[in-house]
Amino acid sequence: MQRITIVGLGRVGASLGLAIKRWISAPEATGGRREIEVVGFDHDVEAQKAARKLGAVDSTQWNLARAVQDAALVVLAAPAGEQRAAMLELAPLLRGGSILTDTGPHKQQSLRWASDLLPIGVGFIAGHPVLPTEPDGEPHASLFEHRTYALFPHPSADEAATEVVVGLIQAVGAKPYFPDPAEHDAQVAATSMLPALAAVALMHTASHGAGWRDLQGMATSDLAEATRMAGLPPDGLAEMVALSPGDAVRWLDGFIARLGELRDLAARDDSEASERLRQFIADAHDARARWLKPGPAETLPPRESVAAHFNRLLLGGLRRRRG
Amino acid sequence: MQRITIVGLGRVGASLGLAIKRWISAPEATGGRREIEVVGFDHDVEAQKAARKLGAVDSTQWNLARAVQDAALVVLAAPAGEQRAAMLELAPLLRGGSILTDTGPHKQQSLRWASDLLPIGVGFIAGHPVLPTEPDGEPHASLFEHRTYALFPHPSADEAATEVVVGLIQAVGAKPYFPDPAEHDAQVAATSMLPALAAVALMHTASHGAGWRDLQGMATSDLAEATRMAGLPPDGLAEMVALSPGDAVRWLDGFIARLGELRDLAARDDSEASERLRQFIADAHDARARWLKPGPAETLPPRESVAAHFNRLLLGGLRRRRG
Repeated sequence: MQRITIVGLGRVGASLGLAIKRWISAPEATGGRREIEVVGFDHDVEAQKAARKLGAVDSTQWNLARAVQDAALVVLAAPAGEQRAAMLELAPLLRGGSILTDTGPHKQQSLRWASDLLPIGVGFIAGHPVLPTEPDGEPHASLFEHRTYALFPHPSADEAATEVVVGLIQAVGAKPYFPDPAEHDAQVAATSMLPALAAVALMHTASHGAGWRDLQGMATSDLAEATRMAGLPPDGLAEMVALSPGDAVRWLDGFIARLGELRDLAARDDSEASERLRQFIADAHDARARWLKPGPAETLPPRESVAAHFNRLLLGGLRRRRG
Repeated sequence: MQRITIVGLGRVGASLGLAIKRWISAPEATGGRREIEVVGFDHDVEAQKAARKLGAVDSTQWNLARAVQDAALVVLAAPAGEQRAAMLELAPLLRGGSILTDTGPHKQQSLRWASDLLPIGVGFIAGHPVLPTEPDGEPHASLFEHRTYALFPHPSADEAATEVVVGLIQAVGAKPYFPDPAEHDAQVAATSMLPALAAVALMHTASHGAGWRDLQGMATSDLAEATRMAGLPPDGLAEMVALSPGDAVRWLDGFIARLGELRDLAARDDSEASERLRQFIADAHDARARWLKPGPAETLPPRESVAAHFNRLLLGGLRRRRG
């Protein structure tokens, strides 16, 4: 038996367990693949129970040390705000030769923490599955299918370790890519933190305007949709800003400048301004359409070859690595 | 037969037809109610055909004059940008004693146009069903159920005319209310125009940042959701701003100020600022939760009594009104 341990059994961790287990038990799975077991750990006993009931893990352990013991691969899927504490707790329990990957959105810090905390011989590959924010979303085996999954091999990870994580990601249906960590973190800020801050500011603006009380009946309005992210647990966003204040300031400055352009065009009462406003709106429309246009055909290798590859690496290569 | 004519057979007009027809043919409908016919008109022949096929109208007319001839009640459901032209075309065709209501979001202008254009004796009640923006949404009979429906009786409308429109709105399941027109228009700007402008500015900001091209894979991100309104037909938003530039400037100024507060808190590197930022985010969260909390129990009269009321007014009162 080769063990994959998932630490943190929230939506991401439990979905990963379900996806791995689905892959293991697929009709085309070879005997080798069937020798993989998925062990789960979460400080929350209820989360452990739920993951077992869902079939996201083969077993759980009360004790983190026992959960990661002999694990070939450990996936740290703690909430973004608890990643550092979890890595601190995990570090002394990992043995040389094991592979660690994580799932939070902020990768520069995660790579720094790995340098500071992990023992020599542990291969760390920072990871970030790009998923829409759905705090109440149920875990499911298809969560990663066709999703972008960013990977950042730490210097501690050799090629074989990276290939194991790539194999895992492809086995659950995601598309690995290898961006620059700083650019990635800035992108995360643009696609996740900035819209959330915009939603917060929108909510404040609208709810301090005249006639706000009469808006009670407008719960189905565009504003309700546009402020959805202001309805997420507030501490998550506050932590996100605290983790990358530079990105927050930079994107907010850009956003405020664009809104100022719109405001100045709206304030002018001439046809040139009207036309420029129309063009500004049309440009955003076109940029969005281009952005969301499906990319070139996927170049994923056939699933079975990925599976075989992951199998081979996890079952064979890892043993060699530990030598 | 009493005729209700719907002018404009887009999503709102066709849905209204479906809802009225459902009400007419409900099992509890009395004979009187069954004497109502729904006539449709649209300059687009395809829209006429589609509405007939859907069963949204009993018949259509090629000619606007024939469509509104003898109509007790005319609903003008033209797109927001075409309301004035439609009212101009409709005005000379309406006879004294008939009732007109419209459906666009900007009611101050609609009331002004009614004063300028409508012949004496036509009772105008401006209306605005508050619906989420779904340009590709199919018409359906339940579109108005539990929706807020703002009404603005013009001085030309007597109490009986207003009661007919209230009856219609309740018959299709919506909740009538009577706000101040200026406050209503400002609310519409906050719930619809401001989120759309925010989406446009967000799209510009993100798409001019570094590493934008690598975001291609992030179509499922929060940003895609937050910029949905930037994907709507650009001319609609440009017109909305042109119709109420004062509201646009006022709300954008407020929004920019709130974003500036967030920006300044993020830029400061001290614990007081962190705490204030957290509180700012939490306040928006709470305001949204309060806003979206279901209001007090509905006070709609039982459906059958509404129906009877509308029946009586439409079939009896109108004749008296004309007499």
